[in-house]
Amino acid sequence: MQKNTFRQKEGVFVAEGINVIEVALEASIDIEALYYDPIEVEEHIVAQQILHRALVKGIRVYPLVPNIISKISNTINPQPILAVLPRLDTELVELKEMDFLVIGVGIKDPGNAGTIMRSAQAAGAQGVIFCDNSVDIYNPKLVRASAGALFYLSLVEASSFEETILKIKSLGFFTVASLVDKGIDYTEANLVRKIALVVGNEANGLNDQIAQLNDLCVTIPMKGRTESLNVGMATTVLCFEAARQRRQLGNAHGTY
Amino acid sequence: MQKNTFRQKEGVFVAEGINVIEVALEASIDIEALYYDPIEVEEHIVAQQILHRALVKGIRVYPLVPNIISKISNTINPQPILAVLPRLDTELVELKEMDFLVIGVGIKDPGNAGTIMRSAQAAGAQGVIFCDNSVDIYNPKLVRASAGALFYLSLVEASSFEETILKIKSLGFFTVASLVDKGIDYTEANLVRKIALVVGNEANGLNDQIAQLNDLCVTIPMKGRTESLNVGMATTVLCFEAARQRRQLGNAHGTY
Repeated sequence: MQKNTFRQKEGVFVAEGINVIEVALEASIDIEALYYDPIEVEEHIVAQQILHRALVKGIRVYPLVPNIISKISNTINPQPILAVLPRLDTELVELKEMDFLVIGVGIKDPGNAGTIMRSAQAAGAQGVIFCDNSVDIYNPKLVRASAGALFYLSLVEASSFEETILKIKSLGFFTVASLVDKGIDYTEANLVRKIALVVGNEANGLNDQIAQLNDLCVTIPMKGRTESLNVGMATTVLCFEAARQRRQLGNAHGTY
Repeated sequence: MQKNTFRQKEGVFVAEGINVIEVALEASIDIEALYYDPIEVEEHIVAQQILHRALVKGIRVYPLVPNIISKISNTINPQPILAVLPRLDTELVELKEMDFLVIGVGIKDPGNAGTIMRSAQAAGAQGVIFCDNSVDIYNPKLVRASAGALFYLSLVEASSFEETILKIKSLGFFTVASLVDKGIDYTEANLVRKIALVVGNEANGLNDQIAQLNDLCVTIPMKGRTESLNVGMATTVLCFEAARQRRQLGNAHGTY
């Protein structure tokens, strides 16, 4: 059930985790069905509340054979409820009216990808694109790490960065790449315009070839070692600087 | 060997992880000894380089019986080398000459605690204090999650927050607590002065009682749900805002 090919074919994906399912309900996602472990749920008040809310909303709710979740789950602490949800990703062109995107290039680690989504959403970005063989956006670890942020974002799975950047620029976005060095101080960049922040692969950052395709390169000045922040943390810093600048300007998007 | 009581009694702790040990060498920490798995190291060039650098520095290096590391390690992917290091924590009073600290209150998750250390160090904080039953600072998962930042920070393990805050104020620090709501916009706070940023427990944030003991309360304005950032991410945002303000002022501490 957790195989990527199944998720693609059926147009659905499976989400585990009380928090994630709670946010899906809040965000009024069309949940296909919920499956629960009757024994686990018996002792779990929040899980019971979620099932109740789902029933009220007319979502189908099915009990499973006890302990089946822990057998099919691929997380260490399986949750009492699973949700089957429609795939949420969209096409790049659908992002054209937005003014704040994040593009992850070759992000392999689901924890980092989840942090990117959380920060982007909390800071006011409307969309996140993953390209260059980044982790599958429906990877169960990513879904949990995103803490539900994926339900509030427009998500795109793109192929190569070169293709993505051309399309993004044609939609009017100014692209700002984050480099571990050589870029200008990120706080001196204008992040108020219609921007796409480009963040790179964990181990090596963005290479020169990818950096050159962008309108601007920025760097987060740091004490000492440049490997101090991982890509998730760096994205958090960049996104909240954009939010700060936008709030300061008091622009129309600014109900932060 | 990983028991907390042993670490306290012997005044040493064990660090796993090639990256962490590399940073310990860079930071010229007095490593007591390195232990390695001869079979694993045979295929691991970076591990060989570390052993070589250690030998040149006069550090004792011992081979272990093959596969013993995976048996005593408590991480999923055990590393080919373990280091025995002296405990690095110090007393609160030793922080008196510093001007940028982070205080973690009831931080239980080693990943979050590690992120706090990384962000603090990268943003230019000189010390990190954990209090109110936070995770042991030598917890092996924390040590790995810190990516070596702990070797560049003054670290304090304190007891209650009430006691800690009194001492910190008596040393001349202005304490700034991060709340999920009700605080002023963190970008409007003066973070250039001699500050201690106070960040709270993952699940509940800082309670009112703790918040009241501080000189100022700040909040990170966010889109939508206030649970969007975890305590590690929030600390990253706050620390880099302090760094931005300090860089902008171009003060004496600012070689970021």
